[in-house]
Amino acid sequence: MISFPEAIRLIESSAAESEIVSVPLEHSSGKILREKILADRDYPPFNRATMDGFALRSQGFSKDRIYSYKRELHAGESFSLEEGEETIRIMTGAPVPEGFDLVIKVEDSTDLGNSDGKRQVRFDTDKTSSFSNIAIRGEDLKNGEEILSEGTRISSSIFSLLASLGRSRIQISKLPKVRIISTGNEIVGLEETPKPWQIRDSNSYSIRSLLQKYDISPISIVRVGDDLSQLEKAVLEGLDSDILILSGGVSMGNLDLVPKVLEGNGVREIFHKVRIKPGKPIWFGMKGRQAVFGLPGNPFSVQVCFRIFVESYIRKFLCLPTESSLLLPFSGERKKKNQLTEFFPVRLEKKQTTVLTENKNNGSGDIRAGIFSDGLAVQFSEKEKVQEGELLEFYPWN
Amino acid sequence: MISFPEAIRLIESSAAESEIVSVPLEHSSGKILREKILADRDYPPFNRATMDGFALRSQGFSKDRIYSYKRELHAGESFSLEEGEETIRIMTGAPVPEGFDLVIKVEDSTDLGNSDGKRQVRFDTDKTSSFSNIAIRGEDLKNGEEILSEGTRISSSIFSLLASLGRSRIQISKLPKVRIISTGNEIVGLEETPKPWQIRDSNSYSIRSLLQKYDISPISIVRVGDDLSQLEKAVLEGLDSDILILSGGVSMGNLDLVPKVLEGNGVREIFHKVRIKPGKPIWFGMKGRQAVFGLPGNPFSVQVCFRIFVESYIRKFLCLPTESSLLLPFSGERKKKNQLTEFFPVRLEKKQTTVLTENKNNGSGDIRAGIFSDGLAVQFSEKEKVQEGELLEFYPWN
Repeated sequence: MISFPEAIRLIESSAAESEIVSVPLEHSSGKILREKILADRDYPPFNRATMDGFALRSQGFSKDRIYSYKRELHAGESFSLEEGEETIRIMTGAPVPEGFDLVIKVEDSTDLGNSDGKRQVRFDTDKTSSFSNIAIRGEDLKNGEEILSEGTRISSSIFSLLASLGRSRIQISKLPKVRIISTGNEIVGLEETPKPWQIRDSNSYSIRSLLQKYDISPISIVRVGDDLSQLEKAVLEGLDSDILILSGGVSMGNLDLVPKVLEGNGVREIFHKVRIKPGKPIWFGMKGRQAVFGLPGNPFSVQVCFRIFVESYIRKFLCLPTESSLLLPFSGERKKKNQLTEFFPVRLEKKQTTVLTENKNNGSGDIRAGIFSDGLAVQFSEKEKVQEGELLEFYPWN
Repeated sequence: MISFPEAIRLIESSAAESEIVSVPLEHSSGKILREKILADRDYPPFNRATMDGFALRSQGFSKDRIYSYKRELHAGESFSLEEGEETIRIMTGAPVPEGFDLVIKVEDSTDLGNSDGKRQVRFDTDKTSSFSNIAIRGEDLKNGEEILSEGTRISSSIFSLLASLGRSRIQISKLPKVRIISTGNEIVGLEETPKPWQIRDSNSYSIRSLLQKYDISPISIVRVGDDLSQLEKAVLEGLDSDILILSGGVSMGNLDLVPKVLEGNGVREIFHKVRIKPGKPIWFGMKGRQAVFGLPGNPFSVQVCFRIFVESYIRKFLCLPTESSLLLPFSGERKKKNQLTEFFPVRLEKKQTTVLTENKNNGSGDIRAGIFSDGLAVQFSEKEKVQEGELLEFYPWN
C-alpha cells in the first residue's frame, strides 16, 4: 500500500499528454491553451485619453491663460493637429493627437463661451504633468511581447484578451475521451425499482457531473453486474478511450473482479490501494496511452477518488500545472485512530475569517456525505488530532 | 450616486423570478433545484455490512468459541437465516440477515478449516457490540424525510444523490434568455483589421464566457457604433429577453447614448452610477420583468460589473441565495485616495496560510488587468489603507 503523495506522483509520471487541436475562439473558453500568445501590436495601440476633457501640451501650461478650441475628438476617430491649435475637446478612449501630451478632465475646466467662432476655456488643476490622464501607447504590452504561455486555462479575462488580440483560432488541449463502467450486482438502473437489498446506480452520475468541471462529456456509460463475461466485454469496449473509469469491484470481496479483468486485458497495474480514507481500495493502471481507474463503490469514495486522483490525471493530461490546495483554518476539533490520510467534506464558513467546518455524516456509505460541502479537507496520516484554528489543506470541488 | 450595497439591494429587490421547468435528471447538473426532495425509502434501505467478514449475533458472543458456517452473502443478494445458523460469511454492501446484529471483519477471524461439510472459524476482537460494522437501516435518512430544499444548486454530490433517490426528472429554474450589445465607434469585429485608433470587440466575449458559469449561452450578440438609429434597433430587438447586457456608452461623453435610448424605449432607470471603481458609470433598469444592464466600455470594468452586479441579478432570478464573499488576509499594502469602493484583481497564494495578493496592472483599461487573477478583493470606500495581514472580502471568479 502506498501513500497519497506517492500515488499522485505515480499518476503524474504515468500520464499521457493530450493532442493539440485548433478551434475557433468561441469554443476555447475554459479550455487549456497550447501555444504561446504574443501581442500583435502595442497595447494600448495609441496614447488613449482615460477621461473626458481637453487635450493640450503640458509644456508652457498656465492656469491663468484662456485657451480656445474648435474641434472634438471621440473614441474611434482620429485627426492631426492644425497649425496653432492649442487644445481640443477629447472623449474617453479617443487617441490623443500627436503633439499633445496632457488631458485635463472636464470637471477641472470652466467654459468661457464663444469668441470668434472658437470656444474658450480655462483650467484649474495641478495635475498637469506630461501624460496625466493618458494611457501611453505600449504601456500595458509591447508588440511581440509574450503574454500567455502554454498550459494556461482560458478564463473569462483571458478569453476577452484573446479577442482583443484578434485571435480567431486558438490551439488548445484536445479533451480526453472518457468511458464509465459502473459495476456491482447490488446496483440497478434509475428506471428500475430496486429490491430492498439493492441500490440505484448513482456513481456514473457523479462521475459524469464531476467531468463537467473540465467540459468533458463521457462517450459512454455502462452498468454491469459482478459477472466475468459482462465485465470483460465492457472493459474491452472501454479500452477504446483515453480514460476508463470503473466504480465498484476493487475491494476485498470474492466477487471483486475488476483488477483481474483489467490485468487480463493488458492493463498494467501502477498501484492498488492507497493509505487514504475513504477510497483505500483504488486501483490505477495504464495500457499504452490509456489510463484506467478502478474506484471503490461507495458514492462518497467515488467523489473523493475522482477529485484527488482522476483530476490529477486529467490536469496532467491536459498540460495544466499540478494543483495547489488552499490552506485554511479549521473550526472545530477532529480525531482519527487509523494511520490513513483522511479526506472529509467541509464547508467554507465566514467567521472572524473564512474557516473550514466539517460536514458531519455517517461515513463514506452515507448518501448525504458530500452534499452541501464546498470541498475536501485533509487530515494527514500521522496527524491524530486537529485542533481549533489549525491550518488544513483544502481542495474545493470547483 | 449610490453605494455598492445599496445597488445590490436594488438589483435584488427588482429581480424577476425565473420559471420552473421539468428536465431529465441528466440535464440538471449545475442547475438550481425548484422543488423539495424527500427520501423515497430509508437510507441505507437495509442493515448493510460495511466490511467483508462474518455476520452473527452480538448476544452471547465469545472469543473462545469455535463458530461454523456454510453460506456466503454478497452485495445484491439476500437470504433468511436457517434454523441453527450461527454465522455466515458476508461481503461489504450485503444486507445483514434479520436476526444478526454484528459483523466481525475478516482480518479479525481465523479460519480453522472444514469439519462435517461446514467451515470453522474463530474470532479475536473486542469490537463486538451490537451493530458494529453495520450501517443501520435509516441511519442516514428516513423514508419521507426532506433532504433538499428549493434554491439548491445541483452539485456533483447532489446529482449523485438524486440518482440514488431514483429521480429521473427534476424541476429546476429555467435559464434566462440573455442578449448582448457591444457599443462604441472605436470597436471593430474580430474579423476586421483595426485602424491604429480602433480596438477589437472583447467585451461581448468576456460576457459570453462569464455567463458560462451559470450554463447560460447568450441568444444573440450584436455590435453597434455610437449611432442613434442602429442602437435603437438593437435595443428594440434586445428587449425580447430576460436580461439585456450592453457594454459601452454609459459614461459622460457626448456620444454616450445608451441611457437615453433605453429610457426612450420604456426601460425604467433603477440606478445610474455607483460609488465603485472600476465600473462607476454602470446603468441598471427594468422594463416589466426584463432587466437591462448598461456596463462601462473598459474590458476590466465589464468583468467587475458582471461579477458584482449582473451575477447578483442572475442568482436572484434563478432563486439562489445571496452570495457570501470569503474573508481572507491580504498580503501587501494598498492605498487609495478616492471615496469609492475599489474592486481589484487578486490571486490566491499559499504562504503561512492562503492569502490574497494583488495582481498589479495599469488600471481598468489595461487589457491584462484581470488575467491570472483568481477573483476580486474589495477595499471599501472609507478605507484609505489596507495593511499587511488585514482581512478582505474576496469574490472568486468561479
